[in-house]
Amino acid sequence: MMYYMIRRAIQIGLCGLVVGGLEAGYAQQHPRLFITAAEAAAIRQAIGHYALLDTTLGQVRVEVEAALSHPMDVPPPGEAGGYAHERHKQNYRDMYKAGLLFQITGDARYARFVRDMLMAYAAMYPELGPHPRSERQVPGKLFHQLLNECVWLVHTVIAYDAIYNWLSEEERAHIETSVLRPMASWIVNEGAREFDKIHNHGIWAVAAVGMTGYVIEEPEWVEKALYGTKKDGSAGFFAQLDQLFSPDGYYVEGPYYARYALWPLFFFAEAIERNEPERGIYAYRDSILKKALYATVQTTFPDGVFPPINDASLTMNVKAPGVVLGTNVVFARYGGDAALLGVVREQGQVILNGAGLAVAKAYAEAAAVPQMTWPSIEFTDGADGKRGGIGLLRAGTGRQQTVVLMKYGAHGMGHGHFDKLHFMLYDGGRQVIRDYGFARFINVEPKYGGRYLPENNSYAKQTIAHNTVVVDEISQNRADPKIAETLSGERHFFDGKGPVQAMSARANGYWPGVNMQRTLLLIEDSRLDYPVVVDLYRVVSDSTHQYDYPIHFLGQPIWTNVRLQSYTEQLRPLGADYGYQHIWKEAQARTDSVIQFTWLDGHRYYTWTVAAAPATQVILGRIGANDPHFNLRREPLILVRRWAKTHLFASVIEPHGYFHEAREVSLQARPQIKTVRVVGHNEAASVVEVVGKGGWRWTIMVTNGPDNPEARHTVTFGGRTFTWTGNYAVEGVAVASGSSFHD
Amino acid sequence: MMYYMIRRAIQIGLCGLVVGGLEAGYAQQHPRLFITAAEAAAIRQAIGHYALLDTTLGQVRVEVEAALSHPMDVPPPGEAGGYAHERHKQNYRDMYKAGLLFQITGDARYARFVRDMLMAYAAMYPELGPHPRSERQVPGKLFHQLLNECVWLVHTVIAYDAIYNWLSEEERAHIETSVLRPMASWIVNEGAREFDKIHNHGIWAVAAVGMTGYVIEEPEWVEKALYGTKKDGSAGFFAQLDQLFSPDGYYVEGPYYARYALWPLFFFAEAIERNEPERGIYAYRDSILKKALYATVQTTFPDGVFPPINDASLTMNVKAPGVVLGTNVVFARYGGDAALLGVVREQGQVILNGAGLAVAKAYAEAAAVPQMTWPSIEFTDGADGKRGGIGLLRAGTGRQQTVVLMKYGAHGMGHGHFDKLHFMLYDGGRQVIRDYGFARFINVEPKYGGRYLPENNSYAKQTIAHNTVVVDEISQNRADPKIAETLSGERHFFDGKGPVQAMSARANGYWPGVNMQRTLLLIEDSRLDYPVVVDLYRVVSDSTHQYDYPIHFLGQPIWTNVRLQSYTEQLRPLGADYGYQHIWKEAQARTDSVIQFTWLDGHRYYTWTVAAAPATQVILGRIGANDPHFNLRREPLILVRRWAKTHLFASVIEPHGYFHEAREVSLQARPQIKTVRVVGHNEAASVVEVVGKGGWRWTIMVTNGPDNPEARHTVTFGGRTFTWTGNYAVEGVAVASGSSFHD
Repeated sequence: MMYYMIRRAIQIGLCGLVVGGLEAGYAQQHPRLFITAAEAAAIRQAIGHYALLDTTLGQVRVEVEAALSHPMDVPPPGEAGGYAHERHKQNYRDMYKAGLLFQITGDARYARFVRDMLMAYAAMYPELGPHPRSERQVPGKLFHQLLNECVWLVHTVIAYDAIYNWLSEEERAHIETSVLRPMASWIVNEGAREFDKIHNHGIWAVAAVGMTGYVIEEPEWVEKALYGTKKDGSAGFFAQLDQLFSPDGYYVEGPYYARYALWPLFFFAEAIERNEPERGIYAYRDSILKKALYATVQTTFPDGVFPPINDASLTMNVKAPGVVLGTNVVFARYGGDAALLGVVREQGQVILNGAGLAVAKAYAEAAAVPQMTWPSIEFTDGADGKRGGIGLLRAGTGRQQTVVLMKYGAHGMGHGHFDKLHFMLYDGGRQVIRDYGFARFINVEPKYGGRYLPENNSYAKQTIAHNTVVVDEISQNRADPKIAETLSGERHFFDGKGPVQAMSARANGYWPGVNMQRTLLLIEDSRLDYPVVVDLYRVVSDSTHQYDYPIHFLGQPIWTNVRLQSYTEQLRPLGADYGYQHIWKEAQARTDSVIQFTWLDGHRYYTWTVAAAPATQVILGRIGANDPHFNLRREPLILVRRWAKTHLFASVIEPHGYFHEAREVSLQARPQIKTVRVVGHNEAASVVEVVGKGGWRWTIMVTNGPDNPEARHTVTFGGRTFTWTGNYAVEGVAVASGSSFHD
Repeated sequence: MMYYMIRRAIQIGLCGLVVGGLEAGYAQQHPRLFITAAEAAAIRQAIGHYALLDTTLGQVRVEVEAALSHPMDVPPPGEAGGYAHERHKQNYRDMYKAGLLFQITGDARYARFVRDMLMAYAAMYPELGPHPRSERQVPGKLFHQLLNECVWLVHTVIAYDAIYNWLSEEERAHIETSVLRPMASWIVNEGAREFDKIHNHGIWAVAAVGMTGYVIEEPEWVEKALYGTKKDGSAGFFAQLDQLFSPDGYYVEGPYYARYALWPLFFFAEAIERNEPERGIYAYRDSILKKALYATVQTTFPDGVFPPINDASLTMNVKAPGVVLGTNVVFARYGGDAALLGVVREQGQVILNGAGLAVAKAYAEAAAVPQMTWPSIEFTDGADGKRGGIGLLRAGTGRQQTVVLMKYGAHGMGHGHFDKLHFMLYDGGRQVIRDYGFARFINVEPKYGGRYLPENNSYAKQTIAHNTVVVDEISQNRADPKIAETLSGERHFFDGKGPVQAMSARANGYWPGVNMQRTLLLIEDSRLDYPVVVDLYRVVSDSTHQYDYPIHFLGQPIWTNVRLQSYTEQLRPLGADYGYQHIWKEAQARTDSVIQFTWLDGHRYYTWTVAAAPATQVILGRIGANDPHFNLRREPLILVRRWAKTHLFASVIEPHGYFHEAREVSLQARPQIKTVRVVGHNEAASVVEVVGKGGWRWTIMVTNGPDNPEARHTVTFGGRTFTWTGNYAVEGVAVASGSSFHD
């Protein structure tokens, strides 16, 4: 029923598109880039019917009316983050919205606003030279970097397109000659290096030039935008679609930058489809545009926040404008997948064209709006899909989903971190085992101009800032991005079904002579309140190394079974380099026995239980050493340290109990899992036992050989023989029916 | 209109009370303690009409049905926080709710549940001796401390009363003889010391015995409950009402413990009023019960959380059961003040009797439910109202209110902190300048059994844990509660009206030879986005002391104008005792100039601007030193240190700008206020200037003499003469109309 209604909504939505513009062909009428007159009319008629549309329109109106009520300002260019910089950014946003509002409402005040501002730019722009403040990059003229200029132009041509018919011929000629043509020309000629880049900056450049080409009828620019300045396909939009995404749609820089790349991607795609549908842009590379959107929204945590992979904030989410745009366009262009309405729910807004109308209508008419619940999923990395990937195991639904993410893909260009086999855990509505994110207070001018802080390189990118093993206190590839770019993780297997899910991957070559394999399982046992993470991290070497196995948690340490020696009167840094110089050593312990450590985060307790090994150190640390300007957050970590050649770190992370301070309720502050024991491990397999309260037991068997879900395995450790089929098996898990689970 | 409807709702609600029981007199029918048959019938008829009632009933039903579906368990007594302890607590909650549900629904399953459980207790209780695990206190039999026994009995007699008529005479005799009588007798006889205490434990004791007295018709117990075991009024309920509350209703231990004291207070008051209306309990001491409730809810922050005064959690709020009970009863018994519906909104539930019905009805029928917005308000402290007090200046409405709180009352008994003239700032929906709260993980068994941690004494109670000046690194009264109990702060003046509000208080005798006065102003200037706090903290001595002037903030340091010397390679504690041993010294600076320090908390920036004084030190610290068991939270503080005889710390806390990480927006990260300058100060007055961006200027004049809103003052500092009328005046504040404000 709901599906039918959604289908119908889309048909009606697309109906607007089709009648209004899609079949009219390139260069016959305006607006032609993002919205047609017919779509605008359909939106006008829909006002008052669909809450999401009304909310969006109401908000846009408030913003544009505010802009209209203040004196217009088109100042001379200024420095990054300064007033002029921010003013020009605000100006393009205002023009973009005012242009769309003019189409929708027909109110000439909006058109006049766009015209007057464009005329002000037309008066200034011809006098401008290259911006003097650019550093090591192609300058813009309005902005210090060309990127901002491209973003300005993408939005401004949409506004120009929206009032095109309303302008006089003289006005059009003046605006095109004074701003649009010279700016596009600057980007494609003087900015050729950036324009031809296979990078998110390059997408903005080709979108700006290509969209301008459509509006002012300059097919040469469209051609260069699609195929690069040499027009041979070595650069340009198609090359970007080929090389920046894996065949699954995973974006090379990770989701934080994907949200920024999707923005020009879908603006330009819409412009192409509306002007030259014969290019078949939405079908290109097996619908790579669709996959790019799905890969972005399907990597999110249950609250819509992107996992902070590589340089990223901890809070960027699906409300980002590029993701709203992409979600709406993909919904309308690819058959109206109801699952996307869960994303729309998190977004709470739509775009202002036929696609947005279709989404608002489907959302309003859906019998029940689904929560955003994605299944467990793996994405390959690299343009050929052969450079490892990223895996997400999920259990539960909606915001209460548990997510375990492992990163075993490529380095991810300039924003990449040295974090192969890093994992994160989202549980109970929080990022529980965390990535630090970037060291940057974005746009906070007094904090280093809002740019990346020095500690982004000295801490946030380093291996120890992540939840993955560090060898000899040295980051992977000695933190050399050139070497890191030549390598990638390797997937071993991924199985996202059933009460026991597992994924496994390898990272070889990241330290000379040390190979690594990590297998993460997510187990739902009916005797436990929440899904539990089992982590088998195997390091293999011919020589002895120091292996540090850290997890970064938040909240309050509650209990541990080891005898902590705390540094109560003096703190010293944990090390000298590779991020260790930024960690205060708060406490340490030495043990030959199993390690248990419980902390409290939000409303749940978490216990990390690590299998015993002789002469193991436990270290509690806190970020903040060697940070004279208070650029880092003072967050804790715990690490387990061993000196060994080959070693298997086997551990379980168990969420348990409930704490509510205001209600003064605490339940099950003690873990149910009592011990983790390594039965044995070698090149063929690892076998680990987990024992719970009352004596129940899981036997976990994982092959360390090649991916083969069919193969039969037999290994013998300490006189016991273990036999299973496939990449892994777990015995002893209680499922609802009471039976055990086998792979 | 709304008022009319509320009045009507109350009349209807109370109508139920009156018909059902109020005029029936003591000892004629059951239930008679908390609900009557008529009230229960009215609730039954109201089902489906009032959302709050339906929500509450739905929740209670779910809980009771869950209890009914599990095997009943009445285990032998166990240790605090252990299974048996928690089981007996859950049992009384279940009986209480099942009893009320039986009255409302007539469903005998609920009555049977209560009876069966009471019979199980009747079978066990006679065999029990005093609990062996009591430490330094009167034991219970079911529980290690008598307090829990009293709480158990208060709830259980309500349940017993609810099924009284349904029980056979034999069952009643057995339950009364085996449990209710011996337990009440134990409390009033063996527990006489606790019973006669003027303390929240004493309220629970008299409520338990008095309510049992009404149900089983033992007027002697009622008499002792009201007047103490000696029946001379030296103890008992009336003495508690006289001595535990100031004439304004402020509870001696502060709001965190008030929420716990209100619970038996209103249970017992209802029982008295329903059985002996001639006692006039609700009129007693000029309606002290009403004032007690108002003083509790009117001290809350805008999100309904109690300011953590003395030992308190940071999250306890108006949803606490005693506050829900008190709010409902006061609403129904004192004329249905619509402002209380704002509290009810935060609570989201009602109690299950006629008062709760009246609230649910009024809430449903109110034309608009008000936000909980309290005015600026001062409460006196001490039974005579002459032991200082607590002041709250407020600006704005609802959750976006800004609140400045100053504490200048009495010590507050065993849970008191050494924190005279301490202040807190709530702004932008957060506790921005904070109190640490208690050092306790309440009910978290692995954290010291959930009890107060040793660091509660060594850190949380100490002066440096608060936002008030510390002299010579020694806490007030050398942290001796016996001395502290003999002293109190003194109010100077309080003015909570207008765009400039102010309060002033003194603390003398807290250090030998050092007197203190703090004046806090909350200024709304139309040139600034948010209300600003001005703090004039004057310390007076004949000899030189070290004065530390700290504020405890949260979030990230963003900028300072002083040259910080950060301890990058080593941290040491800031001091040796009085809480200083728990603070790591992270950075320091020395300056003769004005100090500015900006941090980011939530979506706002905050800048502290402190007037210049020669050879001033600035120290950034972080809690966590000498904390081997990780019992303290690692939170930051900043302090300004001076060596002087008499000194005026003059500073401004300015909230400014906006930051939203996910939206990547940062506005006005720099403060508008440029400097604070002390023009002069002496025994008569203090004069301070605050200068803003662009040169605007406030002149702040405060008298240091006695409270007199009429007196005319003239002082001369540095050749300039300042004249004003009243306790204080501020010149130069821009208000909406553009004119300045005068007191």
